[in-house]
Amino acid sequence: MTRILGIDPGSQRTGVGIIDIDANGRARHVHHAPLVLLGAADFPQRLRLLAHGLHALIEEFQPQEVAIERVFMAKNADSALKLGQARGAAVCAVVMRDLPVSEYAATEIKLAVVGRGGAEKQQVQHMVGLMLNLQGKLQADAADALAVAITHAHVRATANRLGVDVRQAWSRK
Amino acid sequence: MTRILGIDPGSQRTGVGIIDIDANGRARHVHHAPLVLLGAADFPQRLRLLAHGLHALIEEFQPQEVAIERVFMAKNADSALKLGQARGAAVCAVVMRDLPVSEYAATEIKLAVVGRGGAEKQQVQHMVGLMLNLQGKLQADAADALAVAITHAHVRATANRLGVDVRQAWSRK
Repeated sequence: MTRILGIDPGSQRTGVGIIDIDANGRARHVHHAPLVLLGAADFPQRLRLLAHGLHALIEEFQPQEVAIERVFMAKNADSALKLGQARGAAVCAVVMRDLPVSEYAATEIKLAVVGRGGAEKQQVQHMVGLMLNLQGKLQADAADALAVAITHAHVRATANRLGVDVRQAWSRK
Repeated sequence: MTRILGIDPGSQRTGVGIIDIDANGRARHVHHAPLVLLGAADFPQRLRLLAHGLHALIEEFQPQEVAIERVFMAKNADSALKLGQARGAAVCAVVMRDLPVSEYAATEIKLAVVGRGGAEKQQVQHMVGLMLNLQGKLQADAADALAVAITHAHVRATANRLGVDVRQAWSRK
């Protein structure tokens, strides 16, 4: 069994989702929750909440591998700076625990979860709920965090089938 | 005596500078060096080098307070994302050690070091060298890291003189 933590970084809310993958590659939902950062007094405090929140989550759930959405564009330089800082703090909190991090582009995630790289956000939310047998509507950040964890599980399974070293598959990304 | 770590975040090189401030507010140079991140295989590896590098530096030199340049603009969204991630990882590495972080805008730093908010980069480099009795030319990232540490020392001294709680002065920033 492998436990995967998926992270959807954001400077106001960061989504986190945890799934377990059994020996047959079946995914089971373990946990999801947003880290809400808006209550912080200033931006460094938000990064502090994010870093400490992820640290506590890793302590509690002990994931073995981590997946995070790759961000390669933003509306403007200001939102890019904020999003970038949230993402940098998230990756830092993970690598300080010496956990391996894999990055996936939005199109890869949509392809893995819905089957089409150009799928809508709502379709991702819907499919994540179906795949993990979740009742009710998932919030967007929870769905995105679980979706990137599912994507990583797929890539891992494919790499294993092909006999590719997973670490190597990651570093290609 | 207070030991201050200044950080000039960058995704290719991150400058770090450490100064000691004595009871009379005099600054003494302790250390400066760039964390060179370009050798990393990919971007998450760069953030890993940055986070681990700062962690090791904090272990070795045990600074009590940390100052970092506030970034509020970038050439474009792509460079903003890279710079933002480096900055987020740096702040994360610091707050994971529960050290207080203060942010200063570039104009505040120029004002504190050169006396004019619109000063040139070269003037900052020159003045930092003079103030800390350093021989030879400082590299830009080392000068910027030491400059933000000096700025923090000035703000601290002023806050102490005015009887303002330094933490409060920081959270205003």
